[in-house]
Amino acid sequence: MHKSRLAGFIIDCNTPDLPAAARFWGGALGMAVRPLPGAEGERYVALDEPAGRLHVEVQSVGHPSRVHLDIETDDVEAEVRRLEALGAKRIDPVHAWLVMEAPTGQRFCVVRARSALDDGTATAWP
Amino acid sequence: MHKSRLAGFIIDCNTPDLPAAARFWGGALGMAVRPLPGAEGERYVALDEPAGRLHVEVQSVGHPSRVHLDIETDDVEAEVRRLEALGAKRIDPVHAWLVMEAPTGQRFCVVRARSALDDGTATAWP
Repeated sequence: MHKSRLAGFIIDCNTPDLPAAARFWGGALGMAVRPLPGAEGERYVALDEPAGRLHVEVQSVGHPSRVHLDIETDDVEAEVRRLEALGAKRIDPVHAWLVMEAPTGQRFCVVRARSALDDGTATAWP
Repeated sequence: MHKSRLAGFIIDCNTPDLPAAARFWGGALGMAVRPLPGAEGERYVALDEPAGRLHVEVQSVGHPSRVHLDIETDDVEAEVRRLEALGAKRIDPVHAWLVMEAPTGQRFCVVRARSALDDGTATAWP
């Protein structure tokens, strides 16, 4: 058995100016901009969602700008197999997460959960 | 003064088979699929997010599949002017909501809030 849930979404911005992109999106959504430390901070900026409902990040990317969803899980491989059975395809394993493509064409990521997923908001899959 | 906040996101699917798209996304995200009544139900299916954190809907569209954000507000015109001042552009007024484009290229919607936005999760703008 493993668990998964919607983790949040990433605002992918094809721009060399990640701070400006983060300022726009933080302002637009009414969220504080929180730079991330280390190497992660070169590509990602977190936005603090007031209700703490979901993770929201702005990412600097080389592909066209878009928005993508993250699904978080305590077992990436099992979750990827579950999603493949629903019709999604593996696209590109990158670092600790994995890019998939939905039957409807959107790309999304499966990521390892940072918390235990035990607050009742995740689904346990047999 | 007006208020706004992130309302959620819409999974835009370029497909003639909205029920199949909704089944995939409901299954992928662990959310119950809830058909909407009337004319709205021909283009939209709601997904019930277990934690009630955000609205999530699957929409049948004619443009390429993507994911877009909705910002909800108690004053659409004031919110659009605020977003224009941040660098966004009006694209296409449709019904009771309005499509805008971010400086980073993503399209998003400004929609009239269905609730009073008084639970502390919205930002009040001067």
